[in-house]
Amino acid sequence: MRGMYLVFATIFFAGSAFAAEDSTVKYRKSVMKALGGHMGATASIVKGEVGARHHLVAHAAAMSSIARMAGELFPKGSDKGDTRALPAIWEQPQDFAKTVQALEATTGGLVAAARSGDGNEIKNAFAALGKSCGGCHKKFRKKKK
Amino acid sequence: MRGMYLVFATIFFAGSAFAAEDSTVKYRKSVMKALGGHMGATASIVKGEVGARHHLVAHAAAMSSIARMAGELFPKGSDKGDTRALPAIWEQPQDFAKTVQALEATTGGLVAAARSGDGNEIKNAFAALGKSCGGCHKKFRKKKK
Repeated sequence: MRGMYLVFATIFFAGSAFAAEDSTVKYRKSVMKALGGHMGATASIVKGEVGARHHLVAHAAAMSSIARMAGELFPKGSDKGDTRALPAIWEQPQDFAKTVQALEATTGGLVAAARSGDGNEIKNAFAALGKSCGGCHKKFRKKKK
Repeated sequence: MRGMYLVFATIFFAGSAFAAEDSTVKYRKSVMKALGGHMGATASIVKGEVGARHHLVAHAAAMSSIARMAGELFPKGSDKGDTRALPAIWEQPQDFAKTVQALEATTGGLVAAARSGDGNEIKNAFAALGKSCGGCHKKFRKKKK
């Protein structure tokens, strides 16, 4: 009976651990989806494709909030399941922390630029943010097949 | 020559008009993607799947900002191209305006509940917001095939 209990316990905890990892990945993907949506919207505004310049501060502020969450979205063990997060995130934590800081800095820069209303500042801040997204994805995200 | 000019002008403006509609749809879809991302993240938090309760105010605030944009995302003529927006949006503008107001009210309600930190208030506010999303999608968005 004791042996059987241990087997059940192992199955139970293994199941829970998997569910926990899965939930973390699911949450992270929801947050990154939000970030991608705001970034796409921002691109449309900055490129002048839509006349929604008055939405820019809100998109930038939302991305800045997300940037402050980003460092918490990759706990150890959340490298499993349906995720493109690369092992480098956990193997080079200092480098990864730097790219998260870059996201915080560049989204903050876009908030300031959007509030200033200066077209050149906005373009430069948007370019810096794009570079920060790309830098992190290149190094820490698996390419799509 | 004059006839030829008119032909060119027609092609030019038709092209521009199509591009303008397309950009509006693209922008709307980016904004709705952001909204969907925040809503998915919020669901994970409210259901207790992740311990990111301290992110809730930020997600709610972002959704509240998006709700205030929502009424501007459906100008006349933006019913063409790759969109599931139904004609009812433009045929029943008063009903549509009401559902946009409901989104503003329910996202605002979630911000207040998240700030209060009260679990029951949060659950109720989240349920009200979900109902508001569903109500609008049922009436004003084409079903996926």
